[in-house]
This record gives sequence, structure tokens and C-alpha cells, in this order.
Amino acid sequence: MKREDLTEKILDIKREKGWSWREITAAIGGHSPVLVTAALLGQMKLTKPQAAEAATLFGLTAAEQRMLNEPPYRGSFQAPPTDPLIYRFYELVMVYGTTWKELIQEEFGDGIMSAIDFDFEMERLPDPNGDRVKLTMSGKFLPYRYYGATGNSPRFGYREE
Amino acid sequence: MKREDLTEKILDIKREKGWSWREITAAIGGHSPVLVTAALLGQMKLTKPQAAEAATLFGLTAAEQRMLNEPPYRGSFQAPPTDPLIYRFYELVMVYGTTWKELIQEEFGDGIMSAIDFDFEMERLPDPNGDRVKLTMSGKFLPYRYYGATGNSPRFGYREE
Amino acid sequence: MKREDLTEKILDIKREKGWSWREITAAIGGHSPVLVTAALLGQMKLTKPQAAEAATLFGLTAAEQRMLNEPPYRGSFQAPPTDPLIYRFYELVMVYGTTWKELIQEEFGDGIMSAIDFDFEMERLPDPNGDRVKLTMSGKFLPYRYYGATGNSPRFGYREE
Amino acid sequence: MKREDLTEKILDIKREKGWSWREITAAIGGHSPVLVTAALLGQMKLTKPQAAEAATLFGLTAAEQRMLNEPPYRGSFQAPPTDPLIYRFYELVMVYGTTWKELIQEEFGDGIMSAIDFDFEMERLPDPNGDRVKLTMSGKFLPYRYYGATGNSPRFGYREE
Amino acid sequence: MKREDLTEKILDIKREKGWSWREITAAIGGHSPVLVTAALLGQMKLTKPQAAEAATLFGLTAAEQRMLNEPPYRGSFQAPPTDPLIYRFYELVMVYGTTWKELIQEEFGDGIMSAIDFDFEMERLPDPNGDRVKLTMSGKFLPYRYYGATGNSPRFGYREE
Amino acid sequence: MKREDLTEKILDIKREKGWSWREITAAIGGHSPVLVTAALLGQMKLTKPQAAEAATLFGLTAAEQRMLNEPPYRGSFQAPPTDPLIYRFYELVMVYGTTWKELIQEEFGDGIMSAIDFDFEMERLPDPNGDRVKLTMSGKFLPYRYYGATGNSPRFGYREE
Amino acid sequence: MKREDLTEKILDIKREKGWSWREITAAIGGHSPVLVTAALLGQMKLTKPQAAEAATLFGLTAAEQRMLNEPPYRGSFQAPPTDPLIYRFYELVMVYGTTWKELIQEEFGDGIMSAIDFDFEMERLPDPNGDRVKLTMSGKFLPYRYYGATGNSPRFGYREE
Amino acid sequence: MKREDLTEKILDIKREKGWSWREITAAIGGHSPVLVTAALLGQMKLTKPQAAEAATLFGLTAAEQRMLNEPPYRGSFQAPPTDPLIYRFYELVMVYGTTWKELIQEEFGDGIMSAIDFDFEMERLPDPNGDRVKLTMSGKFLPYRYYGATGNSPRFGYREE
Amino acid sequence: MKREDLTEKILDIKREKGWSWREITAAIGGHSPVLVTAALLGQMKLTKPQAAEAATLFGLTAAEQRMLNEPPYRGSFQAPPTDPLIYRFYELVMVYGTTWKELIQEEFGDGIMSAIDFDFEMERLPDPNGDRVKLTMSGKFLPYRYYGATGNSPRFGYREE
Amino acid sequence: MKREDLTEKILDIKREKGWSWREITAAIGGHSPVLVTAALLGQMKLTKPQAAEAATLFGLTAAEQRMLNEPPYRGSFQAPPTDPLIYRFYELVMVYGTTWKELIQEEFGDGIMSAIDFDFEMERLPDPNGDRVKLTMSGKFLPYRYYGATGNSPRFGYREE
Repeated sequence: MKREDLTEKILDIKREKGWSWREITAAIGGHSPVLVTAALLGQMKLTKPQAAEAATLFGLTAAEQRMLNEPPYRGSFQAPPTDPLIYRFYELVMVYGTTWKELIQEEFGDGIMSAIDFDFEMERLPDPNGDRVKLTMSGKFLPYRYYGATGNSPRFGYREE
Repeated sequence: MKREDLTEKILDIKREKGWSWREITAAIGGHSPVLVTAALLGQMKLTKPQAAEAATLFGLTAAEQRMLNEPPYRGSFQAPPTDPLIYRFYELVMVYGTTWKELIQEEFGDGIMSAIDFDFEMERLPDPNGDRVKLTMSGKFLPYRYYGATGNSPRFGYREE
Repeated sequence: MKREDLTEKILDIKREKGWSWREITAAIGGHSPVLVTAALLGQMKLTKPQAAEAATLFGLTAAEQRMLNEPPYRGSFQAPPTDPLIYRFYELVMVYGTTWKELIQEEFGDGIMSAIDFDFEMERLPDPNGDRVKLTMSGKFLPYRYYGATGNSPRFGYREE
Repeated sequence: MKREDLTEKILDIKREKGWSWREITAAIGGHSPVLVTAALLGQMKLTKPQAAEAATLFGLTAAEQRMLNEPPYRGSFQAPPTDPLIYRFYELVMVYGTTWKELIQEEFGDGIMSAIDFDFEMERLPDPNGDRVKLTMSGKFLPYRYYGATGNSPRFGYREE
Repeated sequence: MKREDLTEKILDIKREKGWSWREITAAIGGHSPVLVTAALLGQMKLTKPQAAEAATLFGLTAAEQRMLNEPPYRGSFQAPPTDPLIYRFYELVMVYGTTWKELIQEEFGDGIMSAIDFDFEMERLPDPNGDRVKLTMSGKFLPYRYYGATGNSPRFGYREE
Repeated sequence: MKREDLTEKILDIKREKGWSWREITAAIGGHSPVLVTAALLGQMKLTKPQAAEAATLFGLTAAEQRMLNEPPYRGSFQAPPTDPLIYRFYELVMVYGTTWKELIQEEFGDGIMSAIDFDFEMERLPDPNGDRVKLTMSGKFLPYRYYGATGNSPRFGYREE
Repeated sequence: MKREDLTEKILDIKREKGWSWREITAAIGGHSPVLVTAALLGQMKLTKPQAAEAATLFGLTAAEQRMLNEPPYRGSFQAPPTDPLIYRFYELVMVYGTTWKELIQEEFGDGIMSAIDFDFEMERLPDPNGDRVKLTMSGKFLPYRYYGATGNSPRFGYREE
Repeated sequence: MKREDLTEKILDIKREKGWSWREITAAIGGHSPVLVTAALLGQMKLTKPQAAEAATLFGLTAAEQRMLNEPPYRGSFQAPPTDPLIYRFYELVMVYGTTWKELIQEEFGDGIMSAIDFDFEMERLPDPNGDRVKLTMSGKFLPYRYYGATGNSPRFGYREE
Repeated sequence: MKREDLTEKILDIKREKGWSWREITAAIGGHSPVLVTAALLGQMKLTKPQAAEAATLFGLTAAEQRMLNEPPYRGSFQAPPTDPLIYRFYELVMVYGTTWKELIQEEFGDGIMSAIDFDFEMERLPDPNGDRVKLTMSGKFLPYRYYGATGNSPRFGYREE
Repeated sequence: MKREDLTEKILDIKREKGWSWREITAAIGGHSPVLVTAALLGQMKLTKPQAAEAATLFGLTAAEQRMLNEPPYRGSFQAPPTDPLIYRFYELVMVYGTTWKELIQEEFGDGIMSAIDFDFEMERLPDPNGDRVKLTMSGKFLPYRYYGATGNSPRFGYREE
């Protein structure tokens, strides 16, 4: 059984039942719609109780339920993405990537914004000129570890200047 | 003169002067630090008055000042980006791209979030477990135009169902 | 069920029946042949009533009918396209792309022509030297948003100079 | 001397003089702004008299003038284009390419729309919802030659069914 | 039904029957072996009568017969080709491509040799040092259209200098 | 000034002086040879005092010294690397990557080993069959954040099951 | 039978039984968990007795058992890897690759660290700031063979200076 | 000195003098215009006497003259070619490549048409519907060597069946 | 039927029977193990009598037997190869390719070593430091044809200087 | 100073002096022409005494002499190679790669032929049908290390079955 076959099965049932992702998320308690949708699309895992709820909702087998609890091999397309909605995000990275690097490192020092310890929220922002998609996200800043001559025991931890 | 040569010159002066992007933005009035930084990195344009302020600040020639007012050929790297900070954003698109597509289209219908009519803000989010990079952005939702048999005069405008 | 399997099924039926795209479009009311054909090829969606008409015409299942109403993952090939007819369009972008950028931005300012709020019409242009394919299209011009220091509330909207 | 160096020189002079492409086209008589701009960007050639006018206008050397009359090695970027304005055209090919193939071949038979015997016009289309970029183009339809057993002397010319 | 499945079926029958392409071409009247072979390999179409003859010869279904009459999505491999025989042709393009461009444009002006209005013949050239593969081909020269300020009505047609 | 030009200058001086990386590291106090070497090759930054020491050692300008203190655009080659020594590491990722994923996630849950909060040590391991290169590294395990319905305020933190 | 089908079957059984890789390794004696896991994922081979133990454990056919004893076609993904956990290793190669080359060659001379005569160990390193993934590996250093004028009989063996 | 710099110099002189390739070929005796042009474009070599004639004609240095007599690193572009004239040849390989393979191997057995022992001629073919570019080429057929158990001394030479 | 399916079937039978390639070659008389193995892996053809022997040995159908006598579409992987054994050969080409070009052309003139009229032998070379893989190969040198002004009848054959 | 600039300088001097690689190798004692040529082309290093001899021969600076003694960043082109002579070797890997893997592993077990502990010889093989390029090479067989549960101290060394 491959994860994409499970994803296809879940999408088939969702289509047949006419469910929305928000309805599905409501039925699988505790996490953000982003996480639950990503897990059902094969990009995140569900916790054990969530996988059980999903199995009940979609009528999955025990093996399918366990698969939903496994971390998947992530990454949903070959870059660059051809779908216009997804491409726009990719374009933002290409256009603003160096800017984000400059500003984040000016504020926080040498490091990155984590894409793992990361959360994400999407809202509709009413606007007279046409409603807007509002995205709010935060990722923990992770400073590069600058370690001393004895590799595993950094002499003075992180003291970037 | 190529835009990347102008960018290199600006970075050389910034380094020599020891200026930060926030100081530079303060000196070039009216726009977000994201926009001003992006323009000086060759990804956005400055307005005419801003280009004049930038020329004064950096001691640019008249031609360089005019170039800052031109829309550049955007896109700052070959994908995928090799720099870890920028790659994390790219990874978010690969991991969450299909999820964003599902949720945005469930909420708004068939269309995209504009990467053009788009704004972006970055803040530091203090956090006892380590400060976080908070990003807030919004883009206008653009519905796909579904037009009628006479191409240029859509029979009933947009009436997606 | 995958969208490309549905496309293959529709093409099989079209071939078996000997229908043309124009006949099919006539049977699925209200939109341009370009849109209807694109939707049946898995690149656009049909509205709900159109999907119902298509289901009747092609004898589709309820799930297939619902799938025709979903925005597909768009993008029909890996670039560059190998088919000569499609390649010629791709070549036009490669040869004229920078020219279009210069002229559109000279006329409209910094921004893009939307590929979403976009319409397209194709006609035969009789010509004694050989008939021509005439294409007319228009896309809404979208100016880049230049926003102020407080990201989400642009200080003075769009006032490009 | 490389063609891209000549292009860079011409853009430098245009920037210095503050000329628009339409002003430049007016000074170099006889062809569409699309063609003249493309030629000056290194994608088309100018005729001999036009090259002479361009040389006068830009103060070019005799060798530069001759180079403007040579067919260039065309193709202005590595695909896919990273600039958003140009990318939108590329996206149209990816999304609509198979549709155009179906509809053109249904109308004209097996063949292509020429990208060589091709013309192109751009206009501003005023629109209360925001002005639109209107593009009109036509290319000669070229049918595939179906030739007989004696390669160079096709038995019955083109008689596609 | 996909075109490559039809190609595979035809090759299976050809193998089983022990037919050569020349025998097959003889049975499907009127076109060059190059064209008929290309059509059966899924790169060209057969005319309606030829498709009927092919259907009789190979025992195809009505739908398969109709598919042979459709222009296929052309392009038989991802470049560069790995098969040595095909690669040699590809290599000729890489080594001689710029030369052909120079000589054709010196002789004919700015334009291309059509790959659509094109014929091709292959012969064995006996040679005491080892027989040679002789290829003769011709393609119509297509001059670039240089059009005037009013896009669709070129001011003075093609008058390249 | 580009970072790779600074790297080239440093390598020229190192060659001219006949210094080893270990000698250079000894002169630039406080960090592992891996970090110092990486910084001088343009992949990490030096702290301010280290950059000063490096400037003294190599006779750098003030601007060059400041550049050594900037986080560089990281990533030293286009993948896959052609140099055999570097390729062997790349090959290890290709051969063992899925294994590492399975074993790390079995031990730690869903997450990654950080490449940022990461240290690395290299030693010679004497061996009668030929000395070995011993590499010891550790990276902080970063669990995926599973957040609740209110994006920015995860309902129950990380409680993966 | 393809190796990836065998891998999929083994993963299905592992999921169904709820076994961990460490439990599986314990049942297939003699090798490191890294090697056994890699073999079951289709990247290494098992020895004959191990393949027999694996066959008993998983209930494999005789042919599947023999396949586990064959060296596979190694390499588990197209680079760059999209999965974040695996990508971090790939990133380390991109960021540190040139550094490793400099330091290994400074210590050992011209050659490589073998990825074949290579071992690997993974441990959990408890850490109050969050546990760490500790990786220890060693590979035999292989010096480049510098051979004399008579290719196969090097005049003075390896005497690099 | 790089070969492409020599090519650029030769093209500069050709442009300045207003020479055609046919005039240049006439001045450099003995070979086809295709060969001479290819050599001057850096894709073939000239013989020693030809290189001397070319040196006289173009006023080259002794070193440049010797470089023209060296076999160059061949291959004039990254595939696929973006120039339309060259692309058409590339397209022919993609569309007809498998056909040529079938027909050549049916006629000659298993082998290839040499791209080395190869000649090429280009003519204008007058045609009332528009003149055609006629290309005639022949390459020696090279059969695959099928050798016996003792590699270097094939048991029975080539006896393909 | 596809060639790779036949290869898979042959490998399944080989595995089931426990045969080695040398045993298989012994049963299919007359050619080198390299050739016979390559043919059964789908990269070369067997002669008619060999295909008959292979069919008997493996119990193939008549169509499968005929397929073994057809020249396959060669090329067994997408470059670069990910398998370490095959990659090492690829690496040799990358590291030594330009050297081989220089030395072969210094010795033989402008041309290539044929990969078609080519033989190959592999032996074990006992060595106290570890046995070696010895490869001996020879390919016919093919000089580039330098032809005269009348393409097909070279004026003075090959007389390279 | 970059290694490719040194290579270009050496080739310029070689051309000017009219030296052959064999003459150069004779002047730089002790190693095979393959090694010396590869080192001067920037793919291998020379030993210290050889670098001194090369410096005398070519009149190099002290820094250039030292650079010749450094292991270079190897890999001389982007794959696939476009030069026909080098491509033929690449093609051999693509066509025979899987065969070599099968036969080497059948003879030696699981492992690779080293491309590091490797030698290479080239000879002219006189042949009445045209002289042949004979290549003899040998590489040490390196078995995969199969190590035990305690990573660094393999329980029973290599005992592959």
C-alpha cells in the first residue's frame, strides 16, 4: 500500500460524501484544519486517536489507520509547481527569498526560521476591493550553532557577534 | 549596467557604512522595509521620490537612480534555493502547497491568492521556548474568470458554482 | 479516481461518438469552447449545472460529475512541451517575453497581466496566402501593491511613480 | 561583441535619455513597436534602413549597426521564466496548451500555428473593474505535409482526411 | 485508451506476424514509409482511408482506427535521447546547429526551415568502404513576418533587408 | 564585492603562505576547524572578533572583514557534486537517506535532525587495514509542531502519539 | 518482481504486525539496525542466512528470499530529496562539502573517504535543551593511485607528495 | 585563450568586412562551406593549410591559427536549443527519431548512422509555393560488433542475424 | 509487450533457477558474457540462433524470442546513475573525459573511439592488496570526414593535417 | 586564481610551443601520460617534484606551482557531455552499466570497482580494418562493509554470503 493510494481513496470518499475539509477537521478533533488536511493529503501524520477518528469517518482498514499515524515521505510535487495557486507561493519565495533572509538575519542573527516548529493559520480578510486571503505563520528562530574546537562540547555555546 | 551590479554596489556601500536595512528604510520614506529591501536587492522597484532618496543616501548616479525606478526582471535564484533560510520557505510550499490549495479553494472558490496585490509583514514573537519569526501576509483572492461563448464579452461574468 | 483517468474516459467516449469539441460545448451551455474543452481535459472546472450536463452527455457517474466541478491541479506537461503545436506558443514566450514585459510595463506601470482574470478567443482568419489562426485574449492588469511600513494597512495604497 | 552587450548598451542609453519604447519605435520607422522593441532587446533583427535609423538615434558604431541587422540567436531566458509578468504567459501555455491543440486541429486539421509568419498587437482595454491588457495575434496555419512514397515528390500533395 | 498502448499493440502484432515496415507501408497505400511508420509509432496521423487499411491489416477496433486518424501529442522521448542511433542525430544538431543557422539565413534571410511542411527520404548508398545511410529532406523556408504598426495589417508585408 | 571573490583571495594567500587550515584555525580562536574553514570558504560566518583576527592574518580590508561577519548565501555547488570526495557524502544520503528517516523517526517521533543546531567533528582513526576518516556529528532533534485549531496558540502544544 | 514491490510488501507486513525496525533487526541476527533496515528498504543486501531469517519472519516466497540476497540497484530518490528529514542531510553536504574536502585532504592527502568500506551508528544523545541525534561514522580513506608510465604496473606505487 | 573568444573575434571581423560565409569558404580552399563555417564557429577543425589561409584572411595571431587546427570541445548549446531555426531540427529528431531507428535498422541491421564519417550539403530548392531548404546528408552505417567469448578476438566477427 | 517486462521475466527465472550469467552465457553459444548479459538486460540484441537458445533455456514465447532479436531502445538509466557501482564509471568519464580526448586526438587525429565497433572484456586480476577488476576494451578509431565543396563526393577524401 | 585559469594558461603555452602531451609527460617524470595530462587539465594533482618540473617547463609562478600540487575540485563538464569523443564513453556507461554491475557482482560479490585506486592505459591497436583505440584499466574491488550491531566494531568483519 502506498501513501498516495490512501490519499486517493480518502479524496474519493470525501467527494462521494460531499464533505468539506472543515467538516472533516471538526470530526477529527484537536488540530488545525491545516494539519488535518495536510495529513489526509499525505504530508503530515495524524496522532493515534485522530487516526482512529479518521478511520471511523472514512471507513478505513486497520492498516490504513496505522499508515495515517506514520510520518510520510513529504514533498508533494516536482518543482516548480505547475498549478497556478501553488505557483504563486513559490514565486513569492523566488521574489522575496533574499529579502526575508536579509531581514530575518538582521533581526535575529545567523540562523533560520524553522519549517518544523512552525504553525500556520488562514483567514478570509473582507475587503471592499475584493476579499483577501490572510495567512499568519510563525516559526521558531533557530540560530546556527557555533561550536568550539572540541566538536561535541562547544566551548562557549552560542555567542554570535 | 546590469541590475545585479547595482545591487552589488548598494551592498558594498551598506557594508562599508555599517547601515542596517531598517536604517536604510527609514531614510527612504513611505514603504515597508520588506518592499524597500526587496527593491534594493533588485526584486522590486522604488517610486521616483524613493529612488531619489536612495540615490542621495548611497551616492548613486542619475542612471542608477533611474534603474531603481524600473521594474526589474524578478526571481532571485535557480530553484531549489541552496541557502537554508530560503530553502525552509520553499519546503513549506512543497509540504503545504496542496493543503493551501484545498483550503483556499474551499473557502473562496476556484482561483488563486495574488502574489502581486500582496503585502507582507515580519515581526519578532517573543517566546519563552525561543523567539519566533512571525509572518503575516495577505493577497487578494482572484477568481478564475469563466467567460461565455463570445470570448471578450463574457455572457454572464463570473458565476462560479 | 484520478483526474487524468477521467480525461482519458471522456476522450474515449468523444472518439467513439465522433463528437467535436464544438458539438460538446454546444451541449454544455454557457461558456466558451476554450473553457469547456479545458475543463474536460482536466485544466479548468465546470460549474455545477455544466457538470450535470456533461455527466448526462458522457454518461458519467455521480463521483465523476463532482470531480468535473473541482478545481484541478493545473499544468498539462513538463516544460518544454514536445508537441510542435504547443511548443510554438512556448517559443513565442521565449522570444517575445521580455518585449511584452517592457511594453506592458511601459503602458501600465509595474505589474502583470492576469492569467486568472483572463479570457481567450480563437477564430479562423481567411487569408489568400493561407488561412490564419487568430487569437484574441485579454487579462486584467494587476499592479504590484506598494504598501507602507504597517504591512497590512498600506499607508497610501498604490501610488506608483 | 556579443548581442547581449549591445542590448545592455541600448538599455543604458534609453535609461539615460529617458526615452520610451514608443518614442524609439516612432524614430525607427515602419514596424510595430513589438518588433522594434524585440529587435533592440536582441530577439529580432531590424531591416537595414531601420538599423541605420537606430544607429543614428543611439549613436552606435558601424559594427553595432550591422549586428542589429543580423538574425540573433533567439530565446531570452532559461525556462521556466522567473519573472512574474513573463511567467503568466508561460502558465497560459501550460494550462491551455492542450486545449489550443484540440481546438486548432479540430478547426484546421493536423498542423500548427506558425510562430514565424506571426503578428502581434497589444492594446489597453479600458474596463471599469480595472483596465485590461488586450493581445491580438495571428499566425498562419501550417498543415503537416503528408507526402508519398517518393519523398521529394509527394504523390498527391496534402490531402489530409 | 492511450496512444502508447495502441503503439505497443501494433508492435506486438508486427512482431508476431514477422512483418517489416516496408510490407506494412505497402499495405497502407499512398504515403512514404517514413510517414506511415511514424504514424504507427504514434508521431503522425494516418488519413481516414489509411487508418481503415491499417485497421484491417492489424485487426484494430473502430476506436483504435479513429485514434490513428487523430494528430497525436508528438515527441517521443525526453532529451537527450539515450539510444545511440537516435542520439547521433541529436549530436548533429548540437554540433552543426549554429552552422545551419548561419548558412540558411545567409541564403534565405531571417526565418526557419519548416519542420511541418517538410519531407524526408532515406536510401542505402552503396559504398566500397561500407554502405552509407543517405537522407534527403526538404522543408519550406518560412521568413519571419516583419509587420507594421497596425499589427494585423502589416504595412508593407515582408520586405526584409 | 562578491563572497566568492573573497574566498578566492583567501585561498590565494593561504597557498602563497603555505598555511594549513589547522594553522589558520589556531590563529582565529575559539571555534572548531570545521566552522572556521567553512566560514573562510564562504559557507559560515565568523564572529566579529574572529573576523578581526582573520583580517589581521590575511591582511584584509575593513569591508572584507565585515563581509566575513555576514551570513553568506550558503550552498557550495550544483547538485549532484562532481568532485568524488564530496560525491561520496551525497551518495550516502541517496543510499541511506530513507533508512535514517525510518530509524530517527522510530526513536524520536515525527521530526528532523537539525542541520542548524548541529556540530561536527572529524578525526583520523588508525586502522591496520588503512586509516579511516571518523566523523562524529550531532543535531538537535526537532519535533514537528502539531498545533490546534487556533493556529498561533496551539491547544495542547506538542503531544504526538 | 521488482525490488520496490518487495519493499512495499515488507512495509505492509511491518505495519500490520506493528513491529519496529529494532525488533525486526533483533530477529535477523548479526548486523547493525542500519544495515538491516537499509536492506529491507531495498538499498543493501542481506546475507543468505539473514535473508532466510527475514523470509521466515515476513513469510516471503523463495524468490523473494533470494532477491533480498541480491545487491540492489541503489539510490532511493531523485535529488534533491523533498522530504525534510532527508533534505537536512543533503543540505549538510551542500554547506559543508567543500570544507570536508579541504580538511580530509589536508589530513590524509589526495583521496576520498570510502562510502563502501563504511560504517554508521546512530544514538540518542540526552540533552537538557532537547535530545540530540548523534551519528558516528567512519569510512576507510582511499588515496588516489598515482601510477607510472606503464599503466598497470605503477613504477613506485603510491608516493604522493 | 578560449575557443569561443576566437569565434567572437572572427564574427566581429566578418561583420566589419561584410563578408559572407560563402566568400570566406572560397578563400579557404578545399572543403565544404558547412565544414569551414562549422570550424570558424568552433565546432570543427581546419586543416593546417586552411588554418593558415584563415589566419591570413582574418589577420589572426600564430596561436589563434594553431587553435583553428585543434579539434574543439564540440556542442554548441544546452539542449533544448531556444533558437527557432535550430529548434526545428531538434524537433525533427524528437518526432522522427524512433521512425529513423526502425527504418535504418530494418534496412541495415543493428547499428547506427555515423555522425563522424558523415557529410552534409544544403541547397535552395526553387518551389512555386515558396522555396525550400534541401538538405542531403549521408553517414556510414556502423554495425554493432558482436564479439565472442574472448573479448578482443571476436570468434566469428560480425554475423548478425 | 515491453522490453523491460521481458527483462523482468528473465531476471525472475534466473533468480528462481539460481543460474549465474556465466552459466546462461555458456548455454547461449558464441558471444561474450558481456554481450549476452547486455542483451538479456535489454541493451543489445541476440542473433536469431541465440534467441532460440535463450527461448529454450528460459521457456519464452515465440514473440518474446523475436523480441530478443530486435535492437532495443538502448540506455538503461537517467543520468547521473544513482547506483554506486555504475556511478564510478560515470565519474571516470567526468574526471578523465577531457584527458582521453586530448590523448586519443594527439595519437589518432580528429575523431572518436567508436562505441559501436567496440569490444569489452572483464577479468579478475589477483592482487595481494585486494583483487582488482581488470577491464580491456577497444573501439575502432573513426576519423571525422572532412569533405569538399560537393558534399557527397569529398574532393580528396580524408587528409587531415 | 582559479584552477581553470591555470589550465587555460598551460594550454596557451602548449599551443604556442607546439608541444605534445607525450613530450610534456616526458619532461615531468615518473607518472603515466594519463595522470600528467589530467593534472595539467585540472583533474588530478602533480606531486611536489613534478609540479616543480612543470613550473620550470611552463614558466609558472610559485603560486601556480603550488596549485598544481593541490587536489582540484574534480569533474570536467555538466552531464551529459556534448563533445562526441567524450560522449561515446558516457554512452558506454548508459548501455553497459547494468551489465557491468551484474558481472562484477557475480564475480566479486557486493561492492564496486574503485575509481580512486584505479589505473588506466591507452594504446594504438593496429588493425587492417582501421586502427583501434585500446584501453586497459583496473580498479581495486571494494566490498561493501557489512558491520554488526555495534557500528564501529563490526562483529564478524566482512563475511558476505
